[in-house]
Amino acid sequence: MKRIVIVGGVAAGMSAAARLRRLDEQAEIVVLERDHYVSYANCGLPYHIGGVIPKRESLQVTTPEHLRATMNLDVRTEQDVVGVDRDAKLVQVVDLLSGTRYAEPYDVLVLTQGATPLRPPVPGIDHPRVLTLRSIPDMDAIIALIDAGAQSAIVIGGSYIGVEVAEALRMRGLAVDLVELQPQVMPLLDPELATDLRDHMTLHGVGMHLGTAATAFHDRGGRVTVDLQSGDSLTADLVVLAVGVRPISSLATAIGLALGPRGGIAVDAHMRSSDPAIYAAGDMVEVTDTVTGQPALIALAGPANRQGRIIADHICGRDSAYTSTQGTAVVKIFDMTAVMTGASERTLRRVGRPYQKITIHPSGHAGYYPGSKAMQLKLLFAPDDGKILGAQIVGYDGVDKRIDVLATAIRAGMSVYDLEHLELAYAPPYGSAKDPVNMAGFVAANLLRGDVVAWYAEDYAQLDPSTTLIDVRSPKEYAAWHMANAINIPLPDLRARMDEIQAAAARGPIRLYCMVGFRSYQAYRILRQRGIVDVATLSGGAKTFLGLSGTSLAAEQFDPALTEADLAAEAQLDAVSFAFIRTI
Amino acid sequence: MKRIVIVGGVAAGMSAAARLRRLDEQAEIVVLERDHYVSYANCGLPYHIGGVIPKRESLQVTTPEHLRATMNLDVRTEQDVVGVDRDAKLVQVVDLLSGTRYAEPYDVLVLTQGATPLRPPVPGIDHPRVLTLRSIPDMDAIIALIDAGAQSAIVIGGSYIGVEVAEALRMRGLAVDLVELQPQVMPLLDPELATDLRDHMTLHGVGMHLGTAATAFHDRGGRVTVDLQSGDSLTADLVVLAVGVRPISSLATAIGLALGPRGGIAVDAHMRSSDPAIYAAGDMVEVTDTVTGQPALIALAGPANRQGRIIADHICGRDSAYTSTQGTAVVKIFDMTAVMTGASERTLRRVGRPYQKITIHPSGHAGYYPGSKAMQLKLLFAPDDGKILGAQIVGYDGVDKRIDVLATAIRAGMSVYDLEHLELAYAPPYGSAKDPVNMAGFVAANLLRGDVVAWYAEDYAQLDPSTTLIDVRSPKEYAAWHMANAINIPLPDLRARMDEIQAAAARGPIRLYCMVGFRSYQAYRILRQRGIVDVATLSGGAKTFLGLSGTSLAAEQFDPALTEADLAAEAQLDAVSFAFIRTI
Repeated sequence: MKRIVIVGGVAAGMSAAARLRRLDEQAEIVVLERDHYVSYANCGLPYHIGGVIPKRESLQVTTPEHLRATMNLDVRTEQDVVGVDRDAKLVQVVDLLSGTRYAEPYDVLVLTQGATPLRPPVPGIDHPRVLTLRSIPDMDAIIALIDAGAQSAIVIGGSYIGVEVAEALRMRGLAVDLVELQPQVMPLLDPELATDLRDHMTLHGVGMHLGTAATAFHDRGGRVTVDLQSGDSLTADLVVLAVGVRPISSLATAIGLALGPRGGIAVDAHMRSSDPAIYAAGDMVEVTDTVTGQPALIALAGPANRQGRIIADHICGRDSAYTSTQGTAVVKIFDMTAVMTGASERTLRRVGRPYQKITIHPSGHAGYYPGSKAMQLKLLFAPDDGKILGAQIVGYDGVDKRIDVLATAIRAGMSVYDLEHLELAYAPPYGSAKDPVNMAGFVAANLLRGDVVAWYAEDYAQLDPSTTLIDVRSPKEYAAWHMANAINIPLPDLRARMDEIQAAAARGPIRLYCMVGFRSYQAYRILRQRGIVDVATLSGGAKTFLGLSGTSLAAEQFDPALTEADLAAEAQLDAVSFAFIRTI
Repeated sequence: MKRIVIVGGVAAGMSAAARLRRLDEQAEIVVLERDHYVSYANCGLPYHIGGVIPKRESLQVTTPEHLRATMNLDVRTEQDVVGVDRDAKLVQVVDLLSGTRYAEPYDVLVLTQGATPLRPPVPGIDHPRVLTLRSIPDMDAIIALIDAGAQSAIVIGGSYIGVEVAEALRMRGLAVDLVELQPQVMPLLDPELATDLRDHMTLHGVGMHLGTAATAFHDRGGRVTVDLQSGDSLTADLVVLAVGVRPISSLATAIGLALGPRGGIAVDAHMRSSDPAIYAAGDMVEVTDTVTGQPALIALAGPANRQGRIIADHICGRDSAYTSTQGTAVVKIFDMTAVMTGASERTLRRVGRPYQKITIHPSGHAGYYPGSKAMQLKLLFAPDDGKILGAQIVGYDGVDKRIDVLATAIRAGMSVYDLEHLELAYAPPYGSAKDPVNMAGFVAANLLRGDVVAWYAEDYAQLDPSTTLIDVRSPKEYAAWHMANAINIPLPDLRARMDEIQAAAARGPIRLYCMVGFRSYQAYRILRQRGIVDVATLSGGAKTFLGLSGTSLAAEQFDPALTEADLAAEAQLDAVSFAFIRTI
């Protein structure tokens, strides 16, 4: 009879325990959890703060008593594991309730201690109103301050937890400022996708302080003043630190387990540490990045749960293996959704991996069916075989669906050519006959097949002075906003004005753009086939250009009604393209 | 310079035309459309009837004038193609406006005439108020009757168009009855998934008449009386026939093109008919079914659009090929969504393909985050290698997302083992840490690996009299409803009552069930490991059992409040299982 001790009773740990019991009715399974709660919904914490999940007990999925009754698990809370004698196979435990210390024998030890929020060594960071959010007690502390009358908050960190907490606090009516070191929110996204998110948060009343950091925290009569690198300072009733997490590796280090280059526990494909009697999983371990092949720390619930399962399998003599983590993630930001899977452009540049990219702005579902809005979808792929390397999407409806399809495609090793052929479910409330994922495949395949040459928003500043920049949108759209130095030749006039364009082409390159990149693609095809050689179309159009420059359309000098009309005109002018998106 | 004549200007035809122009700026492209409209949103027709799409012009994506201006296409509406001289390469056209006849030369001819609604030879079917819905004029005719005061309608046919029209008419306040020959709505779904849909339609006031057919239509003072096979008769102000479509093959037949065994035009991988100068695409052609490999008629917008593109490619000398159609489809039925991809169980039985199946009832997103409901997800897969053969889902939130992931998995040739490892996007508003697709993979892989033995709802009537049927739910759930002959041993009591179970096992087989199949799976693992050999768990649990028997829980003798409590109890008792679904 095997004796398995699991340290940590949330995602990976409880998954391992439950699966172990199902595979081995005889095993003795002990779960030691440092906190008061096991198996709670920690991704739900911000939503209880915000009141979306009204009942606190909804977050507590089970209790040690239930786990014993149904699964015959020995789950003990408030037990701190302070040491491991690997030779004697003994875990040293302190019972935090009684203060007593005891040893627990194991045949197999499973470490699933997770990660802990970073608290950078900034002066004053230990102020009692500078909080973090990782556990139910953390959540309780934030709610207690709100219930006690807190009316303002500063969130430090603009990644997942930071934006979720900012939203939650706004929903409770607090004035909220968000501070992020990078010049964008959601720093894992490439920058052009983050602009709309920033503006959406601003619209919802979050004060956005990007590209700056907290340099000090001061008490101001019980409130907190945060000094920023920018020279500004902010004062609020509470501060939530959400600047990332680091693996809880102190125990593993103390007992001599090997760590990986990023500071997480090193494990093999079976989630076994350098000691074959000790497994580890979840936020504390290093995984292989699916796309880059490099070691990575990726704190995600899905992988943690699946790793727990694999540990149970392997302990029970099965050959289950964990391959890699691709970093598929989603975050809700008020009415918007941001998602990613695989590598970002920033990551690919960092690792020196060749790539190509396209950006499109399709609707979540058929434009004529109410409730749909445009999303921005960026696809990264290999220049040689078109293999999909990564995708990011920001938008409203149907964003989470498309990233799951793309995540599956990456897992299957699909190329952009495969995306062209995917047969996805279509009815007007759900999608388009040519789904955004198909469209991304079409555009990317066009690029790889040489049917179009793209230029990118970041090339704008380096355009050769001899370049003729042509805006192929309508005169009305052009009048509302256009790139500096662009001339206007609307798509329908293009064939009639070939002489003019030929003359420009004799002087230098032709660079085209429109709102989202479709009319300029049509224009490219016309010009290229009529003998213009140095011509290219702006990938993602003006929308992506504005996103990269940190200026969303709404923030421009646009009359919003005109913008609406422009978009309608765009749809009309792109009629045939949209025809096959929208019809049937 | 190539001259391409396209007959039919909606999905496949306009896709071909637009792509042709982009690939070949010089080609002469003529589109001949019999109707007044081209490139309109015919999947949107029911939604304009229902008022969800308020403006009729939203359905008209473009006009011939726009198509000429932007794409230099020669699009002619109200042109009836009455013949083709294949030797002379001439299309004979009647201009329906002037009545004149003319010949149009082609180098390449593309037929995209679509399909036409079936009108079975039932007496009285030509009554002027027995309508169909395929085109804008069809829609206008239905709306005209509503505007003229129609207060009741009968919809004949309970597949896609039928249920969409029934919903639309209910939204306009009409009394609606629906008649379907099969004993279920959505006959492409396996029957156990259709029960909830039926009850949902009933809840929304649609009178459901299943397993019966219209035998005659009579005029009753301008209204229509429909006689049913069942002996009943219904009278209403209008009737909408939605009993399927058949390919428009009269022209193709007249000019001697080969048809396939199902009556559609036979085409090769490049969508070329038996005449290499004539291509065809869309609802009029036969395709290869992805899963069965057999010829099939599958009228779907996505494949039609992609086929049009492939035709354009091939005409322009490219090697693009269409592989197959897997039948991915989605339909909205009031607040519910029904989806499918690949083969159904009925289809697999028909073609004699070996399969295994599992059914699960996961939530659309984390149960503790509001707005989620259980879906019923059925997965069909190969018994040998676990290759996914088909999937069907019925539910509320997130149903369309999961079918797109499964459709992609089928296209990638993935197995149920691959589903276990998919890394899908998780945050509480969007999904679960172990997504329904992962869960389906886990359950199916458990079955194939022999970790569980399933029994199925359809086996119930044939259970050997020596069988002990054990309901492992709570006494309260058991008291509310249980299968006839079942005894109650709640999961937490199982280990303590092994003597009793051993005695039963000595007498005959043990068959377990619970609400959705998870507690009984845990019970299976306990009993199997404690030496019970002939034990099996009911796949999909009581919910699927009731679905197959055509009885949804709501229709049982349940106090609805108790049902709610039972489900809560289920969630609580399945705590660990749901723990790893819900946590983090």
